[in-house]
Amino acid sequence: MAITVVGSVAFDSIETPAGRRERCLGGAATHFSLAASFFTEVRVIAVVGEDFGPRQEAIFRARKVDIRGIERAKGKSFFWEGSYLDDLNEAKTHQTDLNVFASFEPKIPAEYRDSQFLFLANIDPVLQRRVREAMPDVKLVAGDTMNYWIKDHKQALLEVLKGLDILLINDTEARMLAGNDNLVQAARAVMAMGPSSLVIKHGEYGASLFHRAGADGKASQTFRAPALPLEEVVDPTGAGDSFAGGFFGYLASQPELTPAAYRRAMFYGSVMGSFAVEKFGTERIAKLSRKEIDDRFLQFRELTHLD
Amino acid sequence: MAITVVGSVAFDSIETPAGRRERCLGGAATHFSLAASFFTEVRVIAVVGEDFGPRQEAIFRARKVDIRGIERAKGKSFFWEGSYLDDLNEAKTHQTDLNVFASFEPKIPAEYRDSQFLFLANIDPVLQRRVREAMPDVKLVAGDTMNYWIKDHKQALLEVLKGLDILLINDTEARMLAGNDNLVQAARAVMAMGPSSLVIKHGEYGASLFHRAGADGKASQTFRAPALPLEEVVDPTGAGDSFAGGFFGYLASQPELTPAAYRRAMFYGSVMGSFAVEKFGTERIAKLSRKEIDDRFLQFRELTHLD
Repeated sequence: MAITVVGSVAFDSIETPAGRRERCLGGAATHFSLAASFFTEVRVIAVVGEDFGPRQEAIFRARKVDIRGIERAKGKSFFWEGSYLDDLNEAKTHQTDLNVFASFEPKIPAEYRDSQFLFLANIDPVLQRRVREAMPDVKLVAGDTMNYWIKDHKQALLEVLKGLDILLINDTEARMLAGNDNLVQAARAVMAMGPSSLVIKHGEYGASLFHRAGADGKASQTFRAPALPLEEVVDPTGAGDSFAGGFFGYLASQPELTPAAYRRAMFYGSVMGSFAVEKFGTERIAKLSRKEIDDRFLQFRELTHLD
Repeated sequence: MAITVVGSVAFDSIETPAGRRERCLGGAATHFSLAASFFTEVRVIAVVGEDFGPRQEAIFRARKVDIRGIERAKGKSFFWEGSYLDDLNEAKTHQTDLNVFASFEPKIPAEYRDSQFLFLANIDPVLQRRVREAMPDVKLVAGDTMNYWIKDHKQALLEVLKGLDILLINDTEARMLAGNDNLVQAARAVMAMGPSSLVIKHGEYGASLFHRAGADGKASQTFRAPALPLEEVVDPTGAGDSFAGGFFGYLASQPELTPAAYRRAMFYGSVMGSFAVEKFGTERIAKLSRKEIDDRFLQFRELTHLD
């Protein structure tokens, strides 16, 4: 079933120990939709400026991503500049120019209305909430956020969380959001804010899936997917969004949301995240084949299964 | 088959957010041997002082650990005092008194000579090497070390590594020993120093098994065992040694060291580590039943397996 995703489509200038790229296509909705496109139909809601042209469009079109919901506005697209020179696990932001995103008012194209799955990628929770409210009848809603919104826009974020089925965040964000250093306790606290499922991403150590269980609201950890320690991480940008795209894209492709489907979805999330970091920006995912995805899925299975 | 282990048997005073214990039984050889005793016969080589009495002996005897190789010397036993108040993943050492360990000269009892497995727990690499050389005919040798020896006694440690089949260390130690922040590259560098297998422990994120592969000396990661994020970690002391005991104890119990046996050994390592932290010192492992171990093994399998 089709996913509608709202989030940033942007230009990124990135420096890592492997090199530097100027103004490559980036943004959470970009990474998410390219990864999810291997599993299901994906429709993007975003805004771009006059610098977004046929070269950028072609990257979406090659993966058959629906970009009719990408609005063109006067001005420049969202721009981010960052580096990972000291620590590949944490971006150092040098510059963030919201540009056309500063006055973005998401509009949902009529053609997107029958989407059964909605993904609220990492943007201002006020915008996430607006899109959520405009699509009340979707079957499953997942979302992402980041430390900036948790720290400085918590009230707006808490409103978003009430409307989520699944939240995907990393360890630091989970601890920050819950105000609790113990991950199991933090998971429970976060699920009490709304989402009945929580994916906590551990970077190079994989990711954990929690479900809210029973009347006591107790968090139960149900699955742990590995990550592949890589010989060389070229560019971590978009790894989390690619994880989300693999995870949610796979769920949307399934006839039923069984526990087994969630487990496989966690694996596909890890798989897409592991590809994303192998090249700069969208380079690796844009050139990926379904066979490569399935081969790495089996490699992850081999890595974690007793027999 | 029987394991001989050399390492510290000590008294620990420990403070964690869960409370404080004065002079409880500790030491790497203690935690290792209690954990390994659930799988095979274990024989300890260590030295203790006059403060080591029937109460401490009883803890070993209850698990049928052979302590004929624990020498009694004039003076006090090794003493460590530490806390985990800021970070449960890292001990802050307040005091280390080597006491009788300062002049320890390991002697191998005649009854230990037919041990096929040897574990060199975390002590001065000079002592590790001496025991290794005194038991040249063992079938498999594994060992542990820590940042202190890597930093200030590297030459002696490198000599020990040449005689190891398996080294068990944590992420920080692997990176420090190899001088390389990338774990896969670090694993390859460490295995080039001697051990053909390497277990890297990731704390609450589990552990990875690497084997040296092929003529090019390339490191291949073969397995990733999970850890159970715990609701409450009472005392992390001895978690790594208990992991080693479960891992090596299980290997020693197997008729053949197949890849499947190594995978299960990684799981048993994680299982024993997860129990160790539930109470202070040796309290939890000392009271453990084989059924509890097997139940948690199944829980770990459920946590990581797709179906």
